[in-house]
Amino acid sequence: MTITSTPAWAALESHRQSVGKSHLKDLFASDPNRVESLSLTFDGILYDFSKQRMTSETLGLLASLAREARVSESTERMFAGERINISEGRSVLHVALRRSAGPFPGSQFDVMPEVIETRRRMAEFAERLRSGKCLGHKGMPIRDVVNIGIGGSDLGPKMMGQALRSLSHPALGVHYISNLDAAQLAPLLQTLDPRTTLFIVVSKTFTTQETMFNANTAREWLRANLGDELVSENHFAAVSSKPERAVEFGVSKDLVFPIWDWVGGRYSLWSAVGLALMVAIGPHAFDEMLRGAERMDEHFRTTPFERNLPVVMALIGIWNTNFLGATTNSVLPYNESLKYFPSFLQQLEMESNGKSVSIGGEALDYATSPIVWGELGNNGQHAFFQLLHQGGRLVPCDFIAAVRSDFPLPKHQEALLSNCFAQSAALAFGRNESEVRASLEKESLSPKEIADLLPHRVFAGNQPSSTMLLSSLNPGSLGSLVALYEHKVFVQGAVWGINSFDQWGVELGKAVANRILPAVYEPELAKMLDASTQGLLNFSRKHLK
Amino acid sequence: MTITSTPAWAALESHRQSVGKSHLKDLFASDPNRVESLSLTFDGILYDFSKQRMTSETLGLLASLAREARVSESTERMFAGERINISEGRSVLHVALRRSAGPFPGSQFDVMPEVIETRRRMAEFAERLRSGKCLGHKGMPIRDVVNIGIGGSDLGPKMMGQALRSLSHPALGVHYISNLDAAQLAPLLQTLDPRTTLFIVVSKTFTTQETMFNANTAREWLRANLGDELVSENHFAAVSSKPERAVEFGVSKDLVFPIWDWVGGRYSLWSAVGLALMVAIGPHAFDEMLRGAERMDEHFRTTPFERNLPVVMALIGIWNTNFLGATTNSVLPYNESLKYFPSFLQQLEMESNGKSVSIGGEALDYATSPIVWGELGNNGQHAFFQLLHQGGRLVPCDFIAAVRSDFPLPKHQEALLSNCFAQSAALAFGRNESEVRASLEKESLSPKEIADLLPHRVFAGNQPSSTMLLSSLNPGSLGSLVALYEHKVFVQGAVWGINSFDQWGVELGKAVANRILPAVYEPELAKMLDASTQGLLNFSRKHLK
Repeated sequence: MTITSTPAWAALESHRQSVGKSHLKDLFASDPNRVESLSLTFDGILYDFSKQRMTSETLGLLASLAREARVSESTERMFAGERINISEGRSVLHVALRRSAGPFPGSQFDVMPEVIETRRRMAEFAERLRSGKCLGHKGMPIRDVVNIGIGGSDLGPKMMGQALRSLSHPALGVHYISNLDAAQLAPLLQTLDPRTTLFIVVSKTFTTQETMFNANTAREWLRANLGDELVSENHFAAVSSKPERAVEFGVSKDLVFPIWDWVGGRYSLWSAVGLALMVAIGPHAFDEMLRGAERMDEHFRTTPFERNLPVVMALIGIWNTNFLGATTNSVLPYNESLKYFPSFLQQLEMESNGKSVSIGGEALDYATSPIVWGELGNNGQHAFFQLLHQGGRLVPCDFIAAVRSDFPLPKHQEALLSNCFAQSAALAFGRNESEVRASLEKESLSPKEIADLLPHRVFAGNQPSSTMLLSSLNPGSLGSLVALYEHKVFVQGAVWGINSFDQWGVELGKAVANRILPAVYEPELAKMLDASTQGLLNFSRKHLK
Repeated sequence: MTITSTPAWAALESHRQSVGKSHLKDLFASDPNRVESLSLTFDGILYDFSKQRMTSETLGLLASLAREARVSESTERMFAGERINISEGRSVLHVALRRSAGPFPGSQFDVMPEVIETRRRMAEFAERLRSGKCLGHKGMPIRDVVNIGIGGSDLGPKMMGQALRSLSHPALGVHYISNLDAAQLAPLLQTLDPRTTLFIVVSKTFTTQETMFNANTAREWLRANLGDELVSENHFAAVSSKPERAVEFGVSKDLVFPIWDWVGGRYSLWSAVGLALMVAIGPHAFDEMLRGAERMDEHFRTTPFERNLPVVMALIGIWNTNFLGATTNSVLPYNESLKYFPSFLQQLEMESNGKSVSIGGEALDYATSPIVWGELGNNGQHAFFQLLHQGGRLVPCDFIAAVRSDFPLPKHQEALLSNCFAQSAALAFGRNESEVRASLEKESLSPKEIADLLPHRVFAGNQPSSTMLLSSLNPGSLGSLVALYEHKVFVQGAVWGINSFDQWGVELGKAVANRILPAVYEPELAKMLDASTQGLLNFSRKHLK
């Protein structure tokens, strides 16, 4: 039975006929307790979803849907270490990475000894770096650390490093290099001293094309600058599940940190993939981040659906996507330090749930992951918010802010927050024709001018949003926040009946790129390619030299 | 008559029944000349749209639609300086900003004398800064320039400055500050020397909340550091249509540069709003950028629709949005230096055409601007491309790359381009069941394993995209590229019958923010606000102190 043929789905379909068409203005007017019943707090986080186009009844029906989809059972199977990523035959145990103690998931299959040992080794290395005791060329202390990784080996630590930059080590530079474009790596190298630079190469297989290109170029740069005296082991660390390949590349065995097949790249921030982050913020803050995530894990595992943050957030997304027909979800942080958060969520959500076959391989006839997009909210107001307010498209928005500023200046934070709250209110409640008319009449315009302007100045409102407020950006609250979104994605995958943990969709492009690359150099080889690729290659060859 | 009731619209509707359902694989197989007929070149740019779900016939029908929408007449009215932004009673003359000579738009109403005089003053000031002759505190030369502006006063120069960073002045720092969050300005101030820093305050009205907050904080910082000896005029320049307000703020009259009501913020890169960019790249390169844009203007104005880049690009967007039902458009630059280009386009497209009433004020019953989103393409491959390949959603993509690298390293560029071309090919052509089966059989799997994996490894393909290749990132090609997108937006607005040049949708949020801000400080005032805002304010007050 697919989820769309359950009684709960049918109940939601008919419920949509009524509440789905109500205006948020009326929903607020008709229920004075609306905000209390449609908001949750947890661990310094307020999640206000009262401006979603739903009622408590909707939430109850959605919770029934989650029960019919057996979400709790799926959750328990994940925590029990079952191989729920069946297309790859793997367990899904990123929750182990933030546990304080074992055995976990069980005494038969206990991953905690290696998790805790790795954490210890990471902390030891990070402290050595932070205290200037990690030595580069001829005994000079390392001053810059460059993380080379892409996708999950980049976005998580980079996002969190930016979010916690107020805690960054004052004297160590930590940099992130991901893509093939030399315009990322080359300008960075110009600013670095090869004698005091260490690269962390992060790749599960140690074969990722982008990462190996950049790692090889980094090694060439060291060789070119340090010559025969280069001791490669002093300038590289690695995170990989293939340690022998890292050693062969030139990394000291002591500086290869493991990653396991039960951690997906986009869930790996908490593992050794977070090493560069730990170097920046220190092992203590890193540990606080793990504790925040662990608290969210417990909340997720033990709280009834209607008060369970990840479950509620997931169900709101399903309501918007599958019942109200939204195709996108906009993420709008009102905090400069969260500027990479939309990109991080793009991967987490779209790579996990951008699928159109069920876990059992049947084609789905309902929508899955929306397109996640967004920008810093305050900037967005002066850019694309026009479309949110008057574009006529349904775009559910997630507003995210931290109350306390991480870099305070007088009065800025109060004004920033007032903008954040104002936008969600304006989107929800709008401004109708009679309100606009009243305001235009005050501007002493002629009746004709008023009539002409009126339709352009009406705001339909009823654009749904949630607001997530953190008391401040600190390792614990951010750990909680990211774990919250991870579990949200898990719940949605469980309801949609898909495998959130594989990513076969990334394979074809890699295979095609491997066919095209030799044809860049060898025009004869292009003849086997499609006509468009041939044309693009012809144009390129003309301009490459 | 609305556009949907024209014969051309009806013809496209019925045409969609056939070609809209064809697979790109078949479209390529059935026409060996497809790439020639569905690609254009102009001024070092190749625009290949052969992987859009259309044929030459589609293009012909779309061109008819543009004729029925009287796009040429609209274009001529814009170039003639008519007040086509009727809701604000303004002409739309950003094209004047890149003209080499006047009179323009006509001898009666000629804006060129002030345009050329402003260009001259900008160049003179930029050269003074670049040669170290612009003096800050006690005769020390200015070394850092901070542009304070938001939206159109930030995104354009910042995007272009990044795109042309290989040309940046080696000894002058140019920085961009936009939003209210002190976490943007405060960390920057920590790195600057107040004695040698100059701020350019960019605001048409000189009242923009974010910009004035940041400008005031900058002035306080100068005062706090330089004390009574501060000469404000040595540390500020301004771009505004209200010069008296800038002078009152403390800017020397000689350093206030004008902006005019016939230039919209999102089209203002070419005006004095681009001053910080000119400081970075120099007046000569800035001028080359204007020449590139002017060449595109001429191409746009004089080329038949079927070979006219902006028109074709606009019509493809209309085909995807209004006939194939796409709700978004993904912009995927394969170039680190173009990393702000998606954000720039978000404003340009969504603020211009995110409207749901016609220019005459009638409610529209068809879609207008899609949601524009995107990231650096190579990073996206390892993040959200899963959804593009297998998510089952129609997402038209714009791939953008420059053939020659602006920061070359051996072999990187060839690999980068091969990835760019591979992704669009994989999206278009996919990999069907029998191809997957053949490939799995080579992996020596059991029949059951093959059957289980097969559906997860099929790629439906038929995801449409265009690829835009520039020979290199240079001022001319980038000027052309931006002008191309500006005119694309214009053509779409003309076909949709909307005013692309107002932005009433940004007003309500500002008004609401002004009501909320005092209530942050004064709980009594919150009682007049909606219940959700009250709750958010209560939580905030607890954590603000």
